[in-house]
Amino acid sequence: MRRPRRKAEETREDILQAAETLFRERGIAGCSIADIAQALSMSPANIFKHFHSKPALVDAICERHIRHLVDRLATLDEQAPAPTRMARVACNIMEAHLQDLRENPHLFEMILMVSKANLPSALVYRQKIEALFADLIAQGMAAGTYHCKNADAASQSASAAFASVLHPAMLANADLSELHQRCDGLAELVNAALQNPFAK
Amino acid sequence: MRRPRRKAEETREDILQAAETLFRERGIAGCSIADIAQALSMSPANIFKHFHSKPALVDAICERHIRHLVDRLATLDEQAPAPTRMARVACNIMEAHLQDLRENPHLFEMILMVSKANLPSALVYRQKIEALFADLIAQGMAAGTYHCKNADAASQSASAAFASVLHPAMLANADLSELHQRCDGLAELVNAALQNPFAK
Repeated sequence: MRRPRRKAEETREDILQAAETLFRERGIAGCSIADIAQALSMSPANIFKHFHSKPALVDAICERHIRHLVDRLATLDEQAPAPTRMARVACNIMEAHLQDLRENPHLFEMILMVSKANLPSALVYRQKIEALFADLIAQGMAAGTYHCKNADAASQSASAAFASVLHPAMLANADLSELHQRCDGLAELVNAALQNPFAK
Repeated sequence: MRRPRRKAEETREDILQAAETLFRERGIAGCSIADIAQALSMSPANIFKHFHSKPALVDAICERHIRHLVDRLATLDEQAPAPTRMARVACNIMEAHLQDLRENPHLFEMILMVSKANLPSALVYRQKIEALFADLIAQGMAAGTYHCKNADAASQSASAAFASVLHPAMLANADLSELHQRCDGLAELVNAALQNPFAK
């Protein structure tokens, strides 16, 4: 049983890799399932067996990218106090998106597409951001820096507040010159809220 | 001198009114400048004299709508304490957008278009929201409820935080069932930040 499943996973990985390369080069509209199949010397039917549609393939590529992006940045500065980490990690994730927007515009276009269509990877991104804030809040509460009655609700509200600098749809139209200041201002606001000893 | 200028303003107003009616009925793509001219028994050249392009006309309609929407809702509950007003006014503005999204989808499409293209009315919306939060913060500080060192920076950060429920691009893709809870959570977060007596 193990051998065929491993083979299927490898094929899936090959398809993802080839598709990501082609989409990054040519954009979603500039690359068909047939092009990806050709690059892999594979039949289009074989690709459709793993990914039922082009959006499903784009979604899988974005999910992998988003998981890697958030995981890589969330673990930086783990020794720093929660309020410092909060500001840094938000700024780092924003900066990673802006780097994609500048250097890999077709990749950012894919992320924007899944975000607008609410595909599963958009939910993964949101859940990862909420989990990241939940961790930060737990760290701050354990250190006595943060005070909040409902940590889950607080991490959801903090994520929502940062959407203005972390949501792809907001970054796509933003005035880049003010984004860092906005991100710092949001961190200050969220930290002031979480550090309020009298908050309900 | 006074007569011709008044005439021009009246013509501008007539064009805006006719264009808004037609755009609401048929959408931006479904209605040309020629259609609007015909509805007013006017030459298209006369419309272009007042509005240099179709986006400029859409922008002017949105600006009027946004000014009316925010002004109408900002002045409700003026006797309530600032934290209560903050939560209510944000919820009211969000609800007005959602009503447009449901009942006047072509109007919401126009607002979304100017927002994505960063046309002048999108800036007007943002400035009005920031001014509204600046007023609320000033009211709360005068009453001793809010504490903040830099009221301008605080109102900008509060506006940015509420973008998640007040920005058209965020509302266009939102899960409507959770928006009210998100708006209440943001109000709680912003109020906790502004009420923190130790905030920097």
